[in-house]
Amino acid sequence: MSAPSDVLSPGRFSLQVPDGDDRERLVCDTCGFINYQNPKIVVGAVCTWQDHYLLVRRAIEPRIGYWTMPAGYMELGETTEAGAAREVWEEGCARVTIGAMIGLFSLPRIGQVHMIYRAEMDSPDHAPGTESLETRLVRWEEIPWEDLAFPTVTWALQAHRKFLGRNDFGPVGVPPEALSGGVFR
Amino acid sequence: MSAPSDVLSPGRFSLQVPDGDDRERLVCDTCGFINYQNPKIVVGAVCTWQDHYLLVRRAIEPRIGYWTMPAGYMELGETTEAGAAREVWEEGCARVTIGAMIGLFSLPRIGQVHMIYRAEMDSPDHAPGTESLETRLVRWEEIPWEDLAFPTVTWALQAHRKFLGRNDFGPVGVPPEALSGGVFR
Ligand SMILES: [Zn+2]
Ligand SMILES: [Zn+2]
Repeated sequence: MSAPSDVLSPGRFSLQVPDGDDRERLVCDTCGFINYQNPKIVVGAVCTWQDHYLLVRRAIEPRIGYWTMPAGYMELGETTEAGAAREVWEEGCARVTIGAMIGLFSLPRIGQVHMIYRAEMDSPDHAPGTESLETRLVRWEEIPWEDLAFPTVTWALQAHRKFLGRNDFGPVGVPPEALSGGVFR
Repeated sequence: MSAPSDVLSPGRFSLQVPDGDDRERLVCDTCGFINYQNPKIVVGAVCTWQDHYLLVRRAIEPRIGYWTMPAGYMELGETTEAGAAREVWEEGCARVTIGAMIGLFSLPRIGQVHMIYRAEMDSPDHAPGTESLETRLVRWEEIPWEDLAFPTVTWALQAHRKFLGRNDFGPVGVPPEALSGGVFR
């Protein structure tokens, strides 16, 4: 995942309700530009080669050094599937065929919606991209659960396993136990 | 749908590749603020009361006067399901229980991803909100196909019908015939 530094310089923007709107937006004090901030889409994929899972080790913060599936911000001009395939290429240098969406995680506290697909690798080739320290193909039993970067990685891997060989499903969401904990609500 | 006027004043921002980035972004010429533009999420719901569908007639551009399911931009701080329910309330003054996602439409040409759910109305009550001229509960045979606002409305209604009584599905996407036409690619 890339982490754009779209943090506003303090004092330059202020919260105002624009004409015809019904909630506060960040408006530039100088020029009146309205910075509509909407939730961002993160697209990614749990990629497999036969019974092996592709994991990439993060070279950037947050959670540098921890393992994840390839995922990152969706860009303008692409579909969600194309974005997921692009992230796999950028972070794991692997070519994949994107399949069904297995996880759809709304994370309102951080203003993100994660859309995670399952994908089959077109070959066993993989290598770290600029945002990764290392890439590996591991069997289910070898997944380093304690060293995964984010809960969404765990949920997506578990969803992939749950839906193995099936096509009769919609994506899983944030697990109820995580919601009741309050962190992801 | 609301249509935020987040159009940049000409000349104030210019396309530059920020340090550490790999593509052009709009950067404010005055203060260096980077306006990351990512795809926006539109959330909505095909709502039913028994065998009737809730349609709302748009009071705003684009496609003023045409019919749609309630849908609009997802806001920060909400889940996709909560956003869909909020839009139903704002545009159709109806309370609903959100169910499965029936349509997921990537529209890269306009930088949007539409996530449409099916929803059951908690009561037959409905009324136009400020962005609607009129609301109606209609049977399938009464849907004004020629007067629907957008192709996504047609696709979502058809998906709802296709999945009636089923839970063994993921959302439909943009139909292949629309993709090959080039308009939605
Ligand atoms: Zn400004
Ligand atoms: Zn500025």
